[in-house]
Amino acid sequence: MTQATLETTINMEAMGQRARQASYMLATLTTAQKNTALLAIADALEANTDHILAQNQLDIDAAVANGVDPIWIRDRMDLKKRMAGIIEDVRKVAQLPDPVGRVYSEAELPSGIHAHKQRVPFGVLGVIYESRPNVTIDISTLALKTGNAVILRGGSDVLNSNLELVRVLQEALAANGIPSDAVQYIASTNRDYVRQMLRLDKHIDMIIPRGGSGLHTFCRENSTIPVITGGIGVCHLYVDETANLDASLPVIHNAKTQRPAVCNALDTVLVHKSVAAEFLPRVVDYLGKDGVVFKAEPQALALLNDDRVEAAGEREFDTEWTALILGLKVVGSLDEAIEHIREHSTQHSDGILTEDDAHATRFLNEVDSAAVFVNASTRFNDGGALGLGAEVAVSTQKMHARGPMALEELTTYKWIVKGDYTSRP
Amino acid sequence: MTQATLETTINMEAMGQRARQASYMLATLTTAQKNTALLAIADALEANTDHILAQNQLDIDAAVANGVDPIWIRDRMDLKKRMAGIIEDVRKVAQLPDPVGRVYSEAELPSGIHAHKQRVPFGVLGVIYESRPNVTIDISTLALKTGNAVILRGGSDVLNSNLELVRVLQEALAANGIPSDAVQYIASTNRDYVRQMLRLDKHIDMIIPRGGSGLHTFCRENSTIPVITGGIGVCHLYVDETANLDASLPVIHNAKTQRPAVCNALDTVLVHKSVAAEFLPRVVDYLGKDGVVFKAEPQALALLNDDRVEAAGEREFDTEWTALILGLKVVGSLDEAIEHIREHSTQHSDGILTEDDAHATRFLNEVDSAAVFVNASTRFNDGGALGLGAEVAVSTQKMHARGPMALEELTTYKWIVKGDYTSRP
Repeated sequence: MTQATLETTINMEAMGQRARQASYMLATLTTAQKNTALLAIADALEANTDHILAQNQLDIDAAVANGVDPIWIRDRMDLKKRMAGIIEDVRKVAQLPDPVGRVYSEAELPSGIHAHKQRVPFGVLGVIYESRPNVTIDISTLALKTGNAVILRGGSDVLNSNLELVRVLQEALAANGIPSDAVQYIASTNRDYVRQMLRLDKHIDMIIPRGGSGLHTFCRENSTIPVITGGIGVCHLYVDETANLDASLPVIHNAKTQRPAVCNALDTVLVHKSVAAEFLPRVVDYLGKDGVVFKAEPQALALLNDDRVEAAGEREFDTEWTALILGLKVVGSLDEAIEHIREHSTQHSDGILTEDDAHATRFLNEVDSAAVFVNASTRFNDGGALGLGAEVAVSTQKMHARGPMALEELTTYKWIVKGDYTSRP
Repeated sequence: MTQATLETTINMEAMGQRARQASYMLATLTTAQKNTALLAIADALEANTDHILAQNQLDIDAAVANGVDPIWIRDRMDLKKRMAGIIEDVRKVAQLPDPVGRVYSEAELPSGIHAHKQRVPFGVLGVIYESRPNVTIDISTLALKTGNAVILRGGSDVLNSNLELVRVLQEALAANGIPSDAVQYIASTNRDYVRQMLRLDKHIDMIIPRGGSGLHTFCRENSTIPVITGGIGVCHLYVDETANLDASLPVIHNAKTQRPAVCNALDTVLVHKSVAAEFLPRVVDYLGKDGVVFKAEPQALALLNDDRVEAAGEREFDTEWTALILGLKVVGSLDEAIEHIREHSTQHSDGILTEDDAHATRFLNEVDSAAVFVNASTRFNDGGALGLGAEVAVSTQKMHARGPMALEELTTYKWIVKGDYTSRP
């Protein structure tokens, strides 16, 4: 028995209507008004840290009682060491430029009308995420900054934490004259409400799932609202025959080991056959000392005689490892490397290590991933690392946004057309 | 019995794979290569006009035998008077600027990497449309210009026409060294293949339905591929109390009568109560002489005593008329006008007629439609009228594209990141 007050039935339609209504007001807020509210949220989180941590402890206690892996609890659930960072991030969002209102593609048309596009909020976002209560604050504040209402559905195991965070958020919004319906939370662990949310196309404009491939597939299959799918990265680096091998090792090491659990972490190294015999054992040594183990296809396996290397299973080159495991494969040519990537990549982050400009250009043009790299780590496919100042999700689809979604990607545009009682000729 | 050779079973998966394979090659074509192919297509259509019209006649004969409305046959099916225009349009597409390859958002990041975005083709488009065989050429040539492969599924009643057009297209492509799989057509009237196409998310990147709301709903409900929905316009003009009434009449006339069957045609006029008694009878006279009839809510009805005006039915303010019918309603204020539009608009095209800048600004900010207008006809929400040079569809959703979709909207971007064997700090 936890302390969260769960509504026995949630009227999702009504929740959607309230979000839509709030979105109209949010769209009229000035940047200054939004920033004031953001700073007030940061202050409120600070003032309410004890309450938040008390609710968070309930979630942690339940997880411990259920035998959840302590590393999982520490890395994803526990807010104790994260509150200061979360609050700091809210203040940073207040500093970011506001994309809403930007005017572009202006034109005077021969008919006499003046037309331009203007960035506007999306309206209402539906966000479904797993664990990690910090995402609750992250998404809510980025939505507020861009004038969007949100309906949130976080992981069941941190429900107490999330409800308390949302309570604090809503109070801070209301105290600043912003409807608390701007941030609503589905206070239930019943997945049926997620299914209902995915069909509220009259009230929700975009669905952002943040989680594993199961969640993405579920949204794709059940949503009548446009969905941003992504966050699944089977990522490649191809070591060309011209690559500087000494310089390539640290890049591969960085891409694989810096944060092995995230989506831009490296999954497979492809090596040109002419350098494979020299380079593959060096890769195994260089990364193996940090605990990486390897899955090699037969040609690569034949070049390696090492306990840390085993034969790759049939579908393992389609696996996002999210762990210290790296696939190794020898390819006969750049064409073969591109072909392997087309077949196995999730179109997230793929790169080439090369000294040959023509090879680099071909790779950049012919590999169709959200981010393509020359002589750089796949880890750079990230809103922060690409200079966007924030990140809501990493899209691997091609519609609307590709790669990191930041503030701009939480907005859309409208056409504004002005005439002098002008009819179309 | 028609002459079209229908495949008994179509392997949609294989069709998708062939399209994907073709898309890789299309993405590498230069603008000059694409334009050469476009001009060759125009020449081939010219050279094959007799064959095309012969197949078109089969469709027309079948329609006549089935008792199809002759106006429908003339306006939507018959190619005789349209071939010259269709061919001319293909040559115009060759003249349009190519968005593929455009570089933007360049940045040198503190980590030492150089990043930019670059416009690239989507890959494979799936387009489902009703009747109008000219759309076959229109979509295929715009897809070719933007380096995309397409899988087409047109209306059953013009299947012979479409298959012949596609044959001519494919021959012209092949003669220019471009895989004929760049344009494929689902040669069946069985809707089950559409259902299968909507789930080919591995091979198709975007679905564009062009047709009525039934088709859009079908795609939304059944597709696991991102869908551009739109093309349904319940469009409004609000006559503010400050509007120049003399100047407003021709704008309303243009919006309603210029092409009543299209999606940006006007459906409802809202009139401020202080000018309603004077203005509404003038609207009825001005448009009534051209055959427009009216549906009025009680307050408007009370101001009108005219055979051409009847009481509006319960859901008629939610009806896209696509005919010479116009809804009339009196509102008490700008707020009430905005509220009515929020409730009834399909977020396609809505405008205000006013002399008051503050009212105009509020309307533009608070009405959340793809295109919003001040003192201009809703008919301007169109790729040609807004200077885009082409139009694939008009989107009423907010993701990716809003309003007219032209060449730019048939492309996406990729991030290109270059380093010097750079690791993420």
